[in-house]
Amino acid sequence: MAGNSFGEAFRITTWGESHGAAIGVVIDGAVPGISLSEEDIQKELNRRKPGQSAVSTARQESDAVSILSGVFEGKTIGTPILLMVPNEDHDSSAYEDIRDTPRPGHADFGYFCKYKIRDHRGGGRSSGRETAGRVAAGAVAKKILSEYGIDLVCHVVQIGTEKADADLLNNLAVGEIKERIERNPVRCADPAAAAIMEKAVLSAAKDGDSLGGIVEGRISGVFAGLGETVFDKLDADLAKAIMSIGAVKGFEVGDGFAAAVATGSQFNDKFMYDGNEVITKTNHCGGILGGISTGMEIRFRAAVKPTPSVACLQETVNLKTGQNTTLAIKGRHDPVIAPRLVPVAEAMAAIVILDHLLRHKMIETKQES
Amino acid sequence: MAGNSFGEAFRITTWGESHGAAIGVVIDGAVPGISLSEEDIQKELNRRKPGQSAVSTARQESDAVSILSGVFEGKTIGTPILLMVPNEDHDSSAYEDIRDTPRPGHADFGYFCKYKIRDHRGGGRSSGRETAGRVAAGAVAKKILSEYGIDLVCHVVQIGTEKADADLLNNLAVGEIKERIERNPVRCADPAAAAIMEKAVLSAAKDGDSLGGIVEGRISGVFAGLGETVFDKLDADLAKAIMSIGAVKGFEVGDGFAAAVATGSQFNDKFMYDGNEVITKTNHCGGILGGISTGMEIRFRAAVKPTPSVACLQETVNLKTGQNTTLAIKGRHDPVIAPRLVPVAEAMAAIVILDHLLRHKMIETKQES
Amino acid sequence: MAGNSFGEAFRITTWGESHGAAIGVVIDGAVPGISLSEEDIQKELNRRKPGQSAVSTARQESDAVSILSGVFEGKTIGTPILLMVPNEDHDSSAYEDIRDTPRPGHADFGYFCKYKIRDHRGGGRSSGRETAGRVAAGAVAKKILSEYGIDLVCHVVQIGTEKADADLLNNLAVGEIKERIERNPVRCADPAAAAIMEKAVLSAAKDGDSLGGIVEGRISGVFAGLGETVFDKLDADLAKAIMSIGAVKGFEVGDGFAAAVATGSQFNDKFMYDGNEVITKTNHCGGILGGISTGMEIRFRAAVKPTPSVACLQETVNLKTGQNTTLAIKGRHDPVIAPRLVPVAEAMAAIVILDHLLRHKMIETKQES
Amino acid sequence: MAGNSFGEAFRITTWGESHGAAIGVVIDGAVPGISLSEEDIQKELNRRKPGQSAVSTARQESDAVSILSGVFEGKTIGTPILLMVPNEDHDSSAYEDIRDTPRPGHADFGYFCKYKIRDHRGGGRSSGRETAGRVAAGAVAKKILSEYGIDLVCHVVQIGTEKADADLLNNLAVGEIKERIERNPVRCADPAAAAIMEKAVLSAAKDGDSLGGIVEGRISGVFAGLGETVFDKLDADLAKAIMSIGAVKGFEVGDGFAAAVATGSQFNDKFMYDGNEVITKTNHCGGILGGISTGMEIRFRAAVKPTPSVACLQETVNLKTGQNTTLAIKGRHDPVIAPRLVPVAEAMAAIVILDHLLRHKMIETKQES
Repeated sequence: MAGNSFGEAFRITTWGESHGAAIGVVIDGAVPGISLSEEDIQKELNRRKPGQSAVSTARQESDAVSILSGVFEGKTIGTPILLMVPNEDHDSSAYEDIRDTPRPGHADFGYFCKYKIRDHRGGGRSSGRETAGRVAAGAVAKKILSEYGIDLVCHVVQIGTEKADADLLNNLAVGEIKERIERNPVRCADPAAAAIMEKAVLSAAKDGDSLGGIVEGRISGVFAGLGETVFDKLDADLAKAIMSIGAVKGFEVGDGFAAAVATGSQFNDKFMYDGNEVITKTNHCGGILGGISTGMEIRFRAAVKPTPSVACLQETVNLKTGQNTTLAIKGRHDPVIAPRLVPVAEAMAAIVILDHLLRHKMIETKQES
Repeated sequence: MAGNSFGEAFRITTWGESHGAAIGVVIDGAVPGISLSEEDIQKELNRRKPGQSAVSTARQESDAVSILSGVFEGKTIGTPILLMVPNEDHDSSAYEDIRDTPRPGHADFGYFCKYKIRDHRGGGRSSGRETAGRVAAGAVAKKILSEYGIDLVCHVVQIGTEKADADLLNNLAVGEIKERIERNPVRCADPAAAAIMEKAVLSAAKDGDSLGGIVEGRISGVFAGLGETVFDKLDADLAKAIMSIGAVKGFEVGDGFAAAVATGSQFNDKFMYDGNEVITKTNHCGGILGGISTGMEIRFRAAVKPTPSVACLQETVNLKTGQNTTLAIKGRHDPVIAPRLVPVAEAMAAIVILDHLLRHKMIETKQES
Repeated sequence: MAGNSFGEAFRITTWGESHGAAIGVVIDGAVPGISLSEEDIQKELNRRKPGQSAVSTARQESDAVSILSGVFEGKTIGTPILLMVPNEDHDSSAYEDIRDTPRPGHADFGYFCKYKIRDHRGGGRSSGRETAGRVAAGAVAKKILSEYGIDLVCHVVQIGTEKADADLLNNLAVGEIKERIERNPVRCADPAAAAIMEKAVLSAAKDGDSLGGIVEGRISGVFAGLGETVFDKLDADLAKAIMSIGAVKGFEVGDGFAAAVATGSQFNDKFMYDGNEVITKTNHCGGILGGISTGMEIRFRAAVKPTPSVACLQETVNLKTGQNTTLAIKGRHDPVIAPRLVPVAEAMAAIVILDHLLRHKMIETKQES
Repeated sequence: MAGNSFGEAFRITTWGESHGAAIGVVIDGAVPGISLSEEDIQKELNRRKPGQSAVSTARQESDAVSILSGVFEGKTIGTPILLMVPNEDHDSSAYEDIRDTPRPGHADFGYFCKYKIRDHRGGGRSSGRETAGRVAAGAVAKKILSEYGIDLVCHVVQIGTEKADADLLNNLAVGEIKERIERNPVRCADPAAAAIMEKAVLSAAKDGDSLGGIVEGRISGVFAGLGETVFDKLDADLAKAIMSIGAVKGFEVGDGFAAAVATGSQFNDKFMYDGNEVITKTNHCGGILGGISTGMEIRFRAAVKPTPSVACLQETVNLKTGQNTTLAIKGRHDPVIAPRLVPVAEAMAAIVILDHLLRHKMIETKQES
């Protein structure tokens, strides 16, 4: 009810403020008997952490995860898994300026209005740092999904006005994209576009400004028939999962907003047999029809806003004095969020798919199970 | 868990197949003491029902609602409200063709794969008819919201390639839009664009084809501080609510996908005092920051796909014979969904806002309540 | 959140006031492909309805159920099942006396304090009539459980001070008890005790008074390993389910309160092999250890209070005038609740077991499913 | 869904195995702005921990709690509160005997059947140690309840066959009981009975055996009108909360099982005005009617089984070899559970009351809020 949990069958609850003692997640509903180590999780956390390239903040955090429960002799045992990442000591005095002065584009003002009290240091609970818990839980979800032959990736397809080549991307499989995006700092599978994107980010950073972008998700190996049918449609749950990531302002599945300008005869994906299997000739719907998977690759896209923490002086208010004021945000910040959002979006997508997979088991009739 | 419920504090569960005995909704969590009549609900259902104009299907349904519980002497009493709409007798034999032959662009195939059994008549549970339960519940939500000074509207801003005038719309208040959209069959607040849209729809219908579109939502009167902070962000819940409507393929809040090409200094909405109240100078974020309302008008948009039921012959499969086949969909269908989706999207948005409003009450400290 | 739903994987929501238009239930999560007819449900409702014997109220109600959704061509299809029972016309003026005067022992006062508004006629939502929805849903649960080889029964083991013979009952199987309890109006499997109980009830009725009793539940065919491990223990969920029936004031599993006077060496049930199967030599724990089934018969008991509606003049208050007053309850009422509670307790137990069975499916690892 | 969470508005999720790295709880839904320190929580944990007297196990554990999130500058801020208690190093080899040999009366067998894999050391997740998380969360709930004038206590009223004096207890207020029970190791408010209980426990311990008992709960300061009306009745939720504690086999509210032998005219509590307030002349119902509080003191009782870990040789099975065997449980164990269960039952009761209090806020109409 208070909104810090996600999922029903595979349920995660993240906890922790940016500058508190630690952050993390508790997972309830992990399938028992799955091999799981701290390395499995650390690997994903390392993809999220800052300080990895010129297009990310220069802050250094080790983000070392510990498994405090739910794993015994290297395997999950079906009980809650508690993952903890200690926060390192930061000089919180740097944030004294924003104790009563909400940063434009940030959640500060909302937290203040909602709770009347907040941990203002580094955004507290609204910090991007909260996503470490999501990524840690997502690592567990991915591990379980791999046992069911399901694979997924997210990747940057646009930064500012620079887009990756659509035809090139269309011909890449999930596994190929996974390899390609680790070769450049913007996590784009089109190397030519990646080089231009990187330049654009560095240029914006030099101006004390920031850029937005678009992240695409691809999920392979999902059988036809996954997803609930009315409110908990697979794409509705993906939408919520992805839109719950701080910087995301839009979500689309398949052709998405482009569907608005298509006609029905163009947009409908025709069914046909491919051997014994039913496939669709095209995949405008993005692998989901009426909220249920079609068996084709699932595809979605997320619009990521430019980093709100920019170096230039911004107009805002002081909630204590009740006066208009200005604010220059100190410290080092990411000039673009989209590349760092990649592992977070992957984690959320993995959690949605696994959650529906576990729920799916319940409806199987006795005869068929 | 089975996905037919939505909301936590104001929780609706829709039920009913298109060609079963009846359809409807049960609402748990309606505030007691609110005046509520069948007319309040019928009014909204009438906006949803087919046969109202040339751009909608010619089918005639009375859709007469009954309140079977939860209201006593004209007022809600806090107990579950059961709303029922009987289905009228239809000739179901018309649907015999699609018993084993999934319609392209429809959920038929997914239901078959998921449940191995289904009511194929008119799409059964996946029919647009299911949304009558949503609209009925939304009428109750709107009635309660009006007591809190919250008003909302959805309206068509694009059909096919024809867009309403953005500047004209920006200057209209929620109440003005509500009035304007009832004056034309496409529910567009820009009368000039509406006339062109109408022609485009009739032209597509004549070709046995269909068009998509974009619906915008506006919510006024929401105080700053509404929304949960991590997963149940106000925009994440709106995204899920709107994406759970069958034909919606995309969702965005505020500038949405346009945010991807803005810089941080452009996109950030600056705070300022307007008298004693904090406002933002612009509203690129759509009235929601970090998942919490800013107190400005909330704005979102939904991409609506073209109606999948088109008259032309389409390729598909016969799941019983295991052969490829073709299908010509019989009967009369809407050549465009977007205008009929307007009351459904309004209902879902009203339910999200009311649900969060009731949840918000829980966090108030004793001193402040 | 508003408390009218029960279960997670098999979720029921009851609705309806005693003297409203109708009462019923919506079920979300029924397994698809199960044969289900109105007769299956009517049979159970007939066991609950009044007017069946001298120990029950003489009111006559037909309680005819309709299935409005979720069943197609005689089988469940996995979508919500709406069951409706119309209320018959009653003269509600008989209840005008209790509009502002809460009946002692009833929920009237609580509803008034909670909602400030209520349907006072016949108790409204707090009426025993609400349990018709539970019984209807329980009939569906029983139908599904029977496919998994699970059977259950509830029966009266005590009325007032008269107890059934414990040794006799211990030797009866679930099936035998089911047969025996339909042979006498108090639903007791010990015919000698039943005859005495019946006399005691008639004697109390003659005095304008009422009696309490104890109902036992027995569930056979549950494999070892059912139940969640911490909060949603099988016995904790049974306790909630049974205690949620209006007249129940106590619940125990296995030896229950008698366990308080046993020693550990007496109370512990020793494990042993019976062929390849592990059983316990005794069953003091009632088939549940640490919240998980042991594979032995599950046994629980519920304490049922005497009917609060008694004919004699009782002291109470008038909430409108703010004065003390007296009240003589009119009409015909059951002189004992326990026998009519039998089908309700069975329904709730069936729902708990089915709910856990469906949840159990989720934890199975891929290798084992 | 996996059963490690409890509560809706104030939701706790406990995590941790007995011999894992740590145990604890995450709380979602704590009211913001409440003063909270580690001392507040440690105080309650100290009441639960072992090694405090001759009637408890001689094991020594420090059980030092840390608040890792949700508290800033000494106050709750509305975000999740993570409480962690590190486990101390134990020699786990002592548990090698029970790796494949389930202890009679314990959950070992059920965990094995359910998950096929488990942490067998000290019972793992089914250990009484799991209740440390509950007690820690209960300390937070009590702190919040005290702001609303609600106080509560649990106390031992029976051990084996020895009962506390009922008349003496009836005349004690919650505050008096709280003081009295800290004066003797069995936590009984009747000092004479306490002395006899203590001797009985020591005698059983000497014999290598254990005793059961009964714990009573009392809650004062709850206004009339608290509790949901159908399934989430206040007493149904208390029943589930208390029955979810491992050793509890029975629950009753008010007169409980004694209600079965009362007549309606005896059992009904008559209403009357006490000044402007409505009270009942007696309190047979235990402060709850139809699931809703009456405003009188809430009273319940729990039957606690004797400690299953007894020193004598017990028959059991070896699940690996598939043979019958015997087991002598090593180590030091509590000869009675009831006194140590007191803080756990208090915690669960506090969580139920607070959860309903927060849910109650949602139904208030605008006019009245």
